[in-house]
Amino acid sequence: PNDTIEYENYFSRTLLDRRSDKRTDSKWLNTKQNHPATVYILFSNLNPLVTLSGGEDGSQQPEVRLCRLCHKDVKEYMSQTEKVTLIFLGVELQLATLNGGILKEEEDGLVAWFALSIDSTFAEQFKQKHEDCYFLHPPMPALLQLPEKEAGVVAQARSVLAWHNRYQFCPTCGSATKIEEGGYKTTCLKEDCPSLQGVHNTSYPRVDPVVIMQVLHPDGNQCLLGRQKRFPPGMFTCLAGFVEPGETIEDAVRREVEEESGVKIGHVQYVSCQPWPMPSSLMIGCLAVAVSTEIRVDKNEIEDARWFTREQVVDVLIKGNQRSFFVPPSRAIAHQLIKHWIGMNANL
Amino acid sequence: PNDTIEYENYFSRTLLDRRSDKRTDSKWLNTKQNHPATVYILFSNLNPLVTLSGGEDGSQQPEVRLCRLCHKDVKEYMSQTEKVTLIFLGVELQLATLNGGILKEEEDGLVAWFALSIDSTFAEQFKQKHEDCYFLHPPMPALLQLPEKEAGVVAQARSVLAWHNRYQFCPTCGSATKIEEGGYKTTCLKEDCPSLQGVHNTSYPRVDPVVIMQVLHPDGNQCLLGRQKRFPPGMFTCLAGFVEPGETIEDAVRREVEEESGVKIGHVQYVSCQPWPMPSSLMIGCLAVAVSTEIRVDKNEIEDARWFTREQVVDVLIKGNQRSFFVPPSRAIAHQLIKHWIGMNANL
Ligand SMILES: Nc1ncnc2c1ncn2[C@@H]1O[C@H](COP(=O)(O)O)[C@@H](O)[C@H]1O
Ligand SMILES: Nc1ncnc2c1ncn2[C@@H]1O[C@H](COP(=O)(O)O)[C@@H](O)[C@H]1O
Repeated sequence: PNDTIEYENYFSRTLLDRRSDKRTDSKWLNTKQNHPATVYILFSNLNPLVTLSGGEDGSQQPEVRLCRLCHKDVKEYMSQTEKVTLIFLGVELQLATLNGGILKEEEDGLVAWFALSIDSTFAEQFKQKHEDCYFLHPPMPALLQLPEKEAGVVAQARSVLAWHNRYQFCPTCGSATKIEEGGYKTTCLKEDCPSLQGVHNTSYPRVDPVVIMQVLHPDGNQCLLGRQKRFPPGMFTCLAGFVEPGETIEDAVRREVEEESGVKIGHVQYVSCQPWPMPSSLMIGCLAVAVSTEIRVDKNEIEDARWFTREQVVDVLIKGNQRSFFVPPSRAIAHQLIKHWIGMNANL
Repeated sequence: PNDTIEYENYFSRTLLDRRSDKRTDSKWLNTKQNHPATVYILFSNLNPLVTLSGGEDGSQQPEVRLCRLCHKDVKEYMSQTEKVTLIFLGVELQLATLNGGILKEEEDGLVAWFALSIDSTFAEQFKQKHEDCYFLHPPMPALLQLPEKEAGVVAQARSVLAWHNRYQFCPTCGSATKIEEGGYKTTCLKEDCPSLQGVHNTSYPRVDPVVIMQVLHPDGNQCLLGRQKRFPPGMFTCLAGFVEPGETIEDAVRREVEEESGVKIGHVQYVSCQPWPMPSSLMIGCLAVAVSTEIRVDKNEIEDARWFTREQVVDVLIKGNQRSFFVPPSRAIAHQLIKHWIGMNANL
């Protein structure tokens, strides 16, 4: 069976090859940090520095874009290792051209990218010098305005930075840690800490798998969407929840749907996934076929859940009629899952 | 496309309904802890207590089974909260029968299961009193001897216990923490810790997503298997690696295969997944179609990688001829992925 369509969701494309082999090559990392061709993206409080580009002549909407800085823009902060965090993100897929004049013959031509997180004092200083730039805040839905390819880089950087933000101490013994391997490892500074014997996940960034599912009514012509209290009024979306230890994706789908809505699920099918840097989730999108229809909402988890007919969903998604309800924007995986279902249905 | 076969892999079946709603009901949890129908499974050093059952009359091979203890077997340890950790695992899918005489009329009939981890001193005491029981060690491949349904319960318990083992201190501030919600949450004890503002993954168990992939040669008739230095001589298996922050499953497959073997991947298709409690991974099994064939092994990651023909794999897997090489046992997802490929191929 080779007919699974692979979706390239928002946050999933990337400009970069991660080159994890370079993370342990501190000489190479050092050289690249000081290289004029190297690209830096800046973060403050987990928010990326952006600017508005285009649109000056009135012909186009201005677009939010990452500020791509170079070493000279950030070097004054880099030595203050207490107040900044540096992550190696990878290298551009295209080699730099030698005739650009920036690269010397003996160099490898790789254009490295780093994320640099600075504290709020530095952030203030920086903004005063660069008035056309700002830190994108709050992150959602603002992050969804970035061009697709930049969004992937931001997802990677934000997730790793969020990990350093919350995991500064060794969870095994409570001591301070140091950052290594280009930002992808932390090591406990206490000499006899058990976390230093063998390989442990305490040293590596977290990725939290989450299931998100388009639930189909047994009649095939309705789907189950729910809403949380904190959603904007009128918004409904796919149910979702964290995968628990010792659980499969399929069982997590069944458990979450039943917990939140009381609906029982039979067959589950993986569709596609999307990184979600809030702070570091992997959204695993599935279709789930219900084998019961009665809804009993768990008010602790969601506020409402309802069956929507195919016509209702087509009205909202295709015809843009959002009077009765609306769904998340097209760059969210929930939107893609709902759309996938409509498409599938249309082919029946 | 509704033709994905759902595999129920080892570690994925379970005897229990997790009933996460009960985790915050401390009165209910307390009642169940002391109830004579409640089942306890015991762990020491992350190893479950087992016994050999059957086979006494020589007619059957003895089978490794979990020891299902009751409250009176463990109550002497339960008060020593410094030295033990208690996890609520869920309730049996079947209600207890009232006429068994254990349950009173007013009770809910739910048979609760708990995992209790005790320190090594208690473990020694326990073994002296119960000579027919032992702690399964080393965990792999010993855990694969358990009956399928018990394996799922052990996967859940071992993952959560391993998390408490390594995450006793708040990673945000380094302070001590307390365990809550039936073992599924830890809360920092420092009053003004930022981890207490809002919801953070620091409070919840880790699940580490790992991709594991059966890589197909572009000719469709060979697959790529590799071996690590620490494997037993002659064993080859599917390539695998941790999903990184900001990465999709499909991209993780492509990155890992190229990093480890130099082979480039095109289409990727999800097949099935399996919890792997070493300590808390979610193995996400995929088929991956290669678009290049030259192998360049990264010696830091693996020792060897080779293309094996379908005939070679059939010889090992179906005909049991393990002279040239062998693959992991049938309860490992790698085995299932390889078998899935052979089955698919047979249908071509
Ligand atoms: N969550 C994690 N737990 C353990 N190792 C990790 C993790 N994330 C990345 N790694 C890396 O993966 C290697 C172990 O991979 P493996 O040999 O497949 O178990 C470690 O040496 C780390 O470099
Ligand atoms: N890794 C995790 N990070 C955050 N919340 C988690 C995690 N695992 C389980 N949870 C639970 O999921 C709830 C948040 O879910 P949600 O509202 O979907 O973001 C929290 O209140 C926790 O009870």
